[in-house]
Amino acid sequence: MPYKKPWGGRFRDATHAGLEKFSASVAFDRRLYRHDLRGSLAHARMLTAIGVLSEAEFNQIENGLEHIRRQIERGDFQWRESLEDVHMNIEARLVELIGDSGKKLHTARSRNDQIATDLRLYLREQVDELCRSLSALQRALAERASAEAGTILPGFTHLQSAQPITFGHHLLAWNEMLQRDYERLRECRARVNRSPLGSAALAGSGFAIDRQMTAKELGFEQVCGNSLDAVSDRDFAIEFNAVAALLMVHLSRMAEEIVLWCSDAFHFIDLGDAFCTGSSIMPQKKNPDVAELARGKCARVSGNLMALLMLMKAQPLAYNRDNQEDKEALFDSVDTALSCVEMFAAFVPQMVLHRDVMLAAAKRGYATATDLADYLVGKQVPFRDAHQTVGKIVNFALQAKAELSEIKLADLQRFHAAIEKDVYAVLSVEGSVKARDHIGGTAPKRVAAAAKRVLRMLDSRVV
Amino acid sequence: MPYKKPWGGRFRDATHAGLEKFSASVAFDRRLYRHDLRGSLAHARMLTAIGVLSEAEFNQIENGLEHIRRQIERGDFQWRESLEDVHMNIEARLVELIGDSGKKLHTARSRNDQIATDLRLYLREQVDELCRSLSALQRALAERASAEAGTILPGFTHLQSAQPITFGHHLLAWNEMLQRDYERLRECRARVNRSPLGSAALAGSGFAIDRQMTAKELGFEQVCGNSLDAVSDRDFAIEFNAVAALLMVHLSRMAEEIVLWCSDAFHFIDLGDAFCTGSSIMPQKKNPDVAELARGKCARVSGNLMALLMLMKAQPLAYNRDNQEDKEALFDSVDTALSCVEMFAAFVPQMVLHRDVMLAAAKRGYATATDLADYLVGKQVPFRDAHQTVGKIVNFALQAKAELSEIKLADLQRFHAAIEKDVYAVLSVEGSVKARDHIGGTAPKRVAAAAKRVLRMLDSRVV
Amino acid sequence: MPYKKPWGGRFRDATHAGLEKFSASVAFDRRLYRHDLRGSLAHARMLTAIGVLSEAEFNQIENGLEHIRRQIERGDFQWRESLEDVHMNIEARLVELIGDSGKKLHTARSRNDQIATDLRLYLREQVDELCRSLSALQRALAERASAEAGTILPGFTHLQSAQPITFGHHLLAWNEMLQRDYERLRECRARVNRSPLGSAALAGSGFAIDRQMTAKELGFEQVCGNSLDAVSDRDFAIEFNAVAALLMVHLSRMAEEIVLWCSDAFHFIDLGDAFCTGSSIMPQKKNPDVAELARGKCARVSGNLMALLMLMKAQPLAYNRDNQEDKEALFDSVDTALSCVEMFAAFVPQMVLHRDVMLAAAKRGYATATDLADYLVGKQVPFRDAHQTVGKIVNFALQAKAELSEIKLADLQRFHAAIEKDVYAVLSVEGSVKARDHIGGTAPKRVAAAAKRVLRMLDSRVV
Amino acid sequence: MPYKKPWGGRFRDATHAGLEKFSASVAFDRRLYRHDLRGSLAHARMLTAIGVLSEAEFNQIENGLEHIRRQIERGDFQWRESLEDVHMNIEARLVELIGDSGKKLHTARSRNDQIATDLRLYLREQVDELCRSLSALQRALAERASAEAGTILPGFTHLQSAQPITFGHHLLAWNEMLQRDYERLRECRARVNRSPLGSAALAGSGFAIDRQMTAKELGFEQVCGNSLDAVSDRDFAIEFNAVAALLMVHLSRMAEEIVLWCSDAFHFIDLGDAFCTGSSIMPQKKNPDVAELARGKCARVSGNLMALLMLMKAQPLAYNRDNQEDKEALFDSVDTALSCVEMFAAFVPQMVLHRDVMLAAAKRGYATATDLADYLVGKQVPFRDAHQTVGKIVNFALQAKAELSEIKLADLQRFHAAIEKDVYAVLSVEGSVKARDHIGGTAPKRVAAAAKRVLRMLDSRVV
Repeated sequence: MPYKKPWGGRFRDATHAGLEKFSASVAFDRRLYRHDLRGSLAHARMLTAIGVLSEAEFNQIENGLEHIRRQIERGDFQWRESLEDVHMNIEARLVELIGDSGKKLHTARSRNDQIATDLRLYLREQVDELCRSLSALQRALAERASAEAGTILPGFTHLQSAQPITFGHHLLAWNEMLQRDYERLRECRARVNRSPLGSAALAGSGFAIDRQMTAKELGFEQVCGNSLDAVSDRDFAIEFNAVAALLMVHLSRMAEEIVLWCSDAFHFIDLGDAFCTGSSIMPQKKNPDVAELARGKCARVSGNLMALLMLMKAQPLAYNRDNQEDKEALFDSVDTALSCVEMFAAFVPQMVLHRDVMLAAAKRGYATATDLADYLVGKQVPFRDAHQTVGKIVNFALQAKAELSEIKLADLQRFHAAIEKDVYAVLSVEGSVKARDHIGGTAPKRVAAAAKRVLRMLDSRVV
Repeated sequence: MPYKKPWGGRFRDATHAGLEKFSASVAFDRRLYRHDLRGSLAHARMLTAIGVLSEAEFNQIENGLEHIRRQIERGDFQWRESLEDVHMNIEARLVELIGDSGKKLHTARSRNDQIATDLRLYLREQVDELCRSLSALQRALAERASAEAGTILPGFTHLQSAQPITFGHHLLAWNEMLQRDYERLRECRARVNRSPLGSAALAGSGFAIDRQMTAKELGFEQVCGNSLDAVSDRDFAIEFNAVAALLMVHLSRMAEEIVLWCSDAFHFIDLGDAFCTGSSIMPQKKNPDVAELARGKCARVSGNLMALLMLMKAQPLAYNRDNQEDKEALFDSVDTALSCVEMFAAFVPQMVLHRDVMLAAAKRGYATATDLADYLVGKQVPFRDAHQTVGKIVNFALQAKAELSEIKLADLQRFHAAIEKDVYAVLSVEGSVKARDHIGGTAPKRVAAAAKRVLRMLDSRVV
Repeated sequence: MPYKKPWGGRFRDATHAGLEKFSASVAFDRRLYRHDLRGSLAHARMLTAIGVLSEAEFNQIENGLEHIRRQIERGDFQWRESLEDVHMNIEARLVELIGDSGKKLHTARSRNDQIATDLRLYLREQVDELCRSLSALQRALAERASAEAGTILPGFTHLQSAQPITFGHHLLAWNEMLQRDYERLRECRARVNRSPLGSAALAGSGFAIDRQMTAKELGFEQVCGNSLDAVSDRDFAIEFNAVAALLMVHLSRMAEEIVLWCSDAFHFIDLGDAFCTGSSIMPQKKNPDVAELARGKCARVSGNLMALLMLMKAQPLAYNRDNQEDKEALFDSVDTALSCVEMFAAFVPQMVLHRDVMLAAAKRGYATATDLADYLVGKQVPFRDAHQTVGKIVNFALQAKAELSEIKLADLQRFHAAIEKDVYAVLSVEGSVKARDHIGGTAPKRVAAAAKRVLRMLDSRVV
Repeated sequence: MPYKKPWGGRFRDATHAGLEKFSASVAFDRRLYRHDLRGSLAHARMLTAIGVLSEAEFNQIENGLEHIRRQIERGDFQWRESLEDVHMNIEARLVELIGDSGKKLHTARSRNDQIATDLRLYLREQVDELCRSLSALQRALAERASAEAGTILPGFTHLQSAQPITFGHHLLAWNEMLQRDYERLRECRARVNRSPLGSAALAGSGFAIDRQMTAKELGFEQVCGNSLDAVSDRDFAIEFNAVAALLMVHLSRMAEEIVLWCSDAFHFIDLGDAFCTGSSIMPQKKNPDVAELARGKCARVSGNLMALLMLMKAQPLAYNRDNQEDKEALFDSVDTALSCVEMFAAFVPQMVLHRDVMLAAAKRGYATATDLADYLVGKQVPFRDAHQTVGKIVNFALQAKAELSEIKLADLQRFHAAIEKDVYAVLSVEGSVKARDHIGGTAPKRVAAAAKRVLRMLDSRVV
C-alpha cells in the first residue's frame, strides 16, 4: 500500500488528480536531495542530543538516510508525484525502511524550515562553484591582458572611434566588472549562510531544540533570528539572482563586443572553429554562437529576477504556497550563470587576435584628435578653444579624406598659429596610449602592472 | 559512423565539447517534432510541385518522416545532442533511412525559416487549446453567476467594506477579465498564423518556390511579406506572452480573493478537500494551495515576458543565435497559463459558499452609507453636502457601536431634518443592490441577464 | 477658507502632512484636465436628462467647467496638493465658482469611474497620435525602400555576412515590424474605447443613470459590462504598454543597426550633422545619439510594463489605492514611444547612404556560397552534399585569401566535377539578389512592388 | 549671442530642433548641480596642483562656481535645453562669468567621467539618507515589539490560522527584512564610493593628473581601476536599484498585512485618521491609503530595475548615449524608497492595536493542534502518527463546531488513549507561545530580549 499523504488525517476527500500534478514539486526539487539528507541528519543528531530520539533511533535514521542517498544516486529511487516534494518522498521511504523511528524524524520540524534549509545549503554550494568559475575567467583575462598590454586597438564611445587604447586595457575593463560580481557573490553568500532550521512552521518549536547545534553542524555562520521571517524569507534567492542578473549583463556586454570583433566589418578576432557553428543552408558561415547565446541568456536571468520579485510582492507572513515557485527560477539562474562563465573561461584563452587589423583601425577615425587639443592646451590655448579648433581641423581632414597625421604643417597652422612641427609626435597612436600614464590609464606599463596586480590577487583567493 | 555536422564542410577543428552541450537545443525543442515533420512534408510537396524533387523522392521522404514520427512517439528515437536541434536530428535520421533523397529535403530552406514555421504551428495549436480552456472557465463562472445572481456579499474597495453587491456580479467581473484575454488571444492568433516558410536563411531562395502553396497546406492565413523580417521576428512569441502575462495577472487577482475568502477571518467560501492540501507539521491545516500556486505562477509568466523583450532588444537583423532562447520561455508560459486555467475551471464549480456569512458581513461596515447620501439627494440636498452629513452620521454610529439601520430616527434627524421614516428602506442591503439597476449594475435581475448573455455568447464559440 | 476634504465628514483628525504629499497625484494627473472636464460635462448632461439636475444647474456647471478650462490653459489655475487629484481640484473650484450646483455634479459618480473614464479618453487620443506618427515613419521607410529597391548590401545573420540583399528590402523588414505594431494599436484602441462611466464606486448607482448616453457623447464604442470590473480594470493601460514595449524593441533593433552602419567599421550610412552630437573632450566625434537614445529608451518602456503587471498582481477587487501608480508609467510610455517614433520619422529621410561601401561589403565574405550550392543542386547534387562541397571550397578560398569569384575554374572543379564555366554568373551579388524572386524575396522588382503596396495601403489609412 | 555647442567645431549643420529636445537631459540631471559643482572644484584644485591652472585661475573658477551655486539655489539660473545637460549649462555660465579660465576647466576631463562622478556622489548621499530612515523605522518597530512582546495574535501560513504568535514577534520579523536591506545598502555604498574622475573620455588623460588627490577630496574610498570600465559602468545604479527593489518588496509585504489587519474581517489594527483617506462617494470609508500606495509603489522600483538591466544589456564599451537613461530610473527609485520608508516610520508608532480581537482570533482555528501533536510525542507517539491522530481530532471538532479546548476528555481519548487531563494546558494559546522558547522563537521573553538587542544595535549605528 502506498504511503498516505503525511498530512491526510484531517481530510476526508482525496486530492483532485489534476491538483496533485499541478502542485507537485518533486520533478524539480529532487535535485536538492543531498542537501535534504544532510539537513535531516543534522536535525536527527540534534533531536538525539536533546533526548527526543534515542541513540538507536538515530542510528536507524542515519543508516536509512544513507541507504536512500545511495538509492537515489544509483537511479533506482522511485520518486512519487503523489508525495509532492523531495522531503515527503524521502520521509515516506525512510518510514518504509525503518518504521517508527522514521516517523519521529519530523518532530520539531516543518517543511517550511526544511526547504529553507535545503535551499540555503544548495545555494551556498553553488555560489562557491560560481566563484571558482569566475576566478578562472578572471585569471584568463588577466593573463591575456598581461600579454597584450601593448597591443593597440581603437577605443570606442558610441561605437565611434574615440581614442586608441590597448587590448590588455580592454580585457581588464571586463575584469573589473567581474571583480564586482565576485565581491557581491561573497557578500551574498554570508546572508545565504544562515540557519532557518528550528523555525518549524513559523513560530518555532515547543521542544527544547538546539538551533546553534544544527547550524554549526551544517556549516551555517549564523542562526536566523526570527522564526516567522526565517520560513517566509526568500531574500537570499532574490539577492543571488540580482547578482547573477548583473553578472549576465556583464557577459552580454563582452559577448556583444566579441560578436562585433568577429564580424567581417571589424575582423579584430577569430573565435576558432571549436567555439563557432555553421549554417544549415549557407556553406560559408562560421558564427560566434557561444557569444550570441550568452548574450541571449542574459535575458532569462533578468526574467527570473523579475519573476522572483513579483512572486514575493505583497505576500503576507509567513509561508505561502506561492513560494514553491522560487526554485525553478533560482535553479535556472544558477545553471545559466555557471555554464556561461565556464564557456567564457574556455574560449578567452583561445581567441585569435588580428593585431594588425586592430592597429590599422586605431589609426583611422581621428582617434588622436584629443591629443591634438591637449597639445594646444600645452601651448596655452584654453581647452574649450582648443577643442573648437581641432574640430575644424577634423572637418578639413574629412574633406581632404586624410588622417590628421597626413595634414601638412602649413595647413594645420592655418587653424592655429601655435602648432609646430612637434605636433606629429602627439598624433601617433603609440604616443597617445603611452601618454595616459596614471592609475587606470591605458598606457602599456600601467596595463601590465594592473594585470599583475589582478593575478596576485587571484593567487590569494580560496574559491 | 555518426552523421557529421550538417554544416561541417567549412570547419577544420571539432566543436568544443562544452559548447556542444551549451548550445544544443534538442533537449527542449524536440517537443516541436510534430510541427517540424508537418512543415517538412509541406516543403517537400512544394519542392515536388516545382520539380526540384521527383515523385519517387517525395514518397521516400513522406514515408521516412512518417517512420520517424512513429519512432519518436514510441519513444525509441535516439536524440543526439551533437546534432544540436530537432531539425538536424530528424534530417540526419531521414538520411540514414532513405539516403540521397533525404539530403535533398533542405533544398531552398534554412533552419531559420524552419524553426519559425515550427514555432508558429505549435503556438497556433496552443492558442486554440488555451482558448478552449478559457471558454470552459468562463462557462463555469457564468453558470455559477446565474445561480448566485441574488446572493449578497460585501463589495470592497481598499479591502474596506464599500457597498453590498451580489456574488454573481463578482463572478461576472472575473469573466470580463477573461473575456478580454480571449479577445486578445484570437487577435494574437491571426498574427501567429502567417507563414515564414520560404524565407530561407534571410533573403529568400533562388529556387522558384511557391510560398502560397506551403502556407495553404499548413493552414496559414497569410504569407510573411518580407524574408528578413520573417526569420528574425519573434513578435508572435512576445505578443502571446504579453497576453498570457495579463491573463495570469487576472488569475492572480481571483486567486487572491479566493485565499481571502477561505481565510478564517472572511470565511466566505470553502474550496473543498480535493483542492487543498495540508501541513507536514500542523495537523489542522487545510490550505488553498491551488489558488496560492496560481497567484505565484503569475510571476513566472511576467518574468518570461521580460526575458523575451530583453532577448530581442537591440538585435540587428536578421537571425542571431540569441533567438534560440525564445523557446523555453514561450513553452513555460504556454504550459503555465494552460494548467492554471484548467485548474480554475475544475474548482470553480466545486466552491462551497457560506452565503450566511457573506450576508452578515454585508450588513456590517456601513455599506449602505452611500444609499443614505443618495436618499438625501432625493430630498434636494446637494450630493457633496449629503456626503458630509452622512459622514458625520457614520461617525456617530461608530461611537454608538451601531449599524446605520440601528440608529433611531430622532438621532438621524439631528444630523439632517429631511430624514424621514422611509429612510430605513434604503438602509437595507437588499434594497441597495436592487437599486443598482442599469447596465453593468449589481441588481440581481441585471446580473441574471448578464450571465445569460455570456452563456449565449459561449454557445456560439468554436473554440 | 480653503475647501475642506470632500470626504472629510467621517474623519476627526487631520491628514498627516507627510501623507498628504505622499499620496497626492495632482502633480501628474493634472495633465488629464481636458478629459476630466469633458467627462464631467457628459455626466452633467446625462444627470440633466434624467432629471437629477435642472437645465439651469447644467448651464451653471457647463459655464463653470469652461471657465476652469480657460483658467488652466492660461496657467492661472491654482492646483492644491491638499485636494489630492485633478478631480477634486476641479470640483472644489467649481463649487467656489457656482456653489450648490457644483456640489451636485458628483451625484451618481465616484472618482473610481471618473479616473477610469479620464484615462481611457486620454489613452484613446494618444493611441491615435501614435498611429499617425507610425504612419509617417512607415511612409518614410516605404519611400526610401522604393528608391533603394536595387541597392545591394550584405545581409547578415549572426552579424556575419550571409547573403546579398537590397537596402530597400532591409527597410521593408523594418516596416513589417511597425505594421504589426500598428495593427496591435488599433485592436488595443477598441478595448480602450469602452465606457466605465456610471460604475460609480464599484456597484453602479442607485440613480436611474443612462450609461449609453454618456458613452455615446464621449465617443466610446461600448459600455463596460460590469461595474466591479470597470473600476478595477487597468488592462487597457497594460495592453497599451505591452504594445509600446514591443514597438520600442523594434526601434531598438533599427537603432542598433543604425549605430552599426554609422561606425567606422561598417560605414554604410551617415546620419547627418543634424541628428548627431559631439563630445565635450574629443573634437572629432560625431555620435549617432538619436539612435542610441532610442535604443536606451526601449528599456524604460519594458520597465514600465513590468511595473504595471506587478502593480496589478494579486489585487483583490475592486479599486485599491495602488492603482494610482498606473498613471506615471502609462504617461511615460506614451511620451517615450511617441517621441521616438517622431524622431525616426524625422531622420529616416535624411540618412545619407554610402552605396559603394555597401556594395563592396556585399562582395566580401563569400555571400554567394549558397548560390554556389544551389548551382550544384541544379546539377543533381543533393543539397546536403552540395553544402559540404561548398564549405570545403570556402575553406580553400580562405587559405587563398580569395573571394569565390576569384577562384579559377580548375580549382573549383577539383571540388566537384559538375562545376562549369557558367558558375561565375551565380557568384555575382547582382545575380544572387535577382534570383530571390518570390513573395517576400529580396529581388529588386519584388522589393519595388512591395514598397508600392505599402504606400498604397498607407494612402488608405485614416490615422 | 548664446554660448555655442561646446563640441560644435567639427559640425557644419545645426542640430535638429526635435533632437535637441529629445536628447537634452538638463530637465532631470540639474538636480545633480551640487555634486557637479563639487566635482568641478576638486578637479580644478587638482589641475592647479599639477600646474595646468594657475592659482589665479583657480580662484576665478572657485568664485565662479560659488556664484553659480547661489544663483541656482536662488532660482534665477537660466537652464538651457540647447546646452544639453547640467555640465554644459554650468560650464557655459562659468565661461560667461570668468572667460578664458572657465574654458580651461574641462582640461583632462570628459563628461563621461564627470557624470559618473556626479552620480556616485549623489547616490552615496542618498544611500546614507535612506539608511537613516531605515534606522528610524527599525527603531519604531523594535520599540513597539518590546511593548507588545506578550500580545498574542494568530500566526498565519497560507493565510490560514497556523499557530499563536506574539505581535512583538511579528514586528521583529519585519525588522529582520529591513536589517538585511540595511546591510546590503552599506555594502553597496562601498562600491558606489569609488572615483571615476580622471578616466576622461575612456582612456584616461594625457595630462599628469593626480586621481588620488581628487578621490580624497571628494571623500571616495578608492579610485576606479580601469578607465574604460569607469566611464561605462553603471553597476552602482543597478546594484542600488536591486537593493531598493527588495526593500520595497519588504514594505509591500508589511503593507499587505496592514491592509488585511485594517479590514473589517480582521480588524486587528486601526491606522488612525491621519494615515487614511476617504471616498468621494461613500461617506463611511476610511481607507489605509498609505499602505496601499506603498504596496503599489513596490512595482515601480522593480520596473526601474528591469529598465536598468535592459538598458545595459549588450552595450559595447565604453560610454554610449543610452546611458543617459540611467538617471530617471535611479532618481525615481531613490525618491520612492525614501518616501515610503519615511511614511512607515511615521505611522508605525501610531497604529492602534485591537488586542482583544487579536487574542480572540488566535483562540479560533485550532491553532494549538501542533501543540497537541507534540503532547502526544511526549507520550511516546511517533510524530507522524501523532499528526494523523490530531488531524482526526480536528475533523471531529469541525463537525462538532467546537474548538480543541472545548472537546471533552473522553472524546479526545477515543482518538488516543495516551491523552490525559493535563492536555488542556497545552491547548491554551498562552502556553503555546510560551513553549517556543529558543533563539528566534515566539516566546514573550525571547521576543523582549530580541527587541532589546535590536535597540542596542541601533544605538551603535552612525547612520
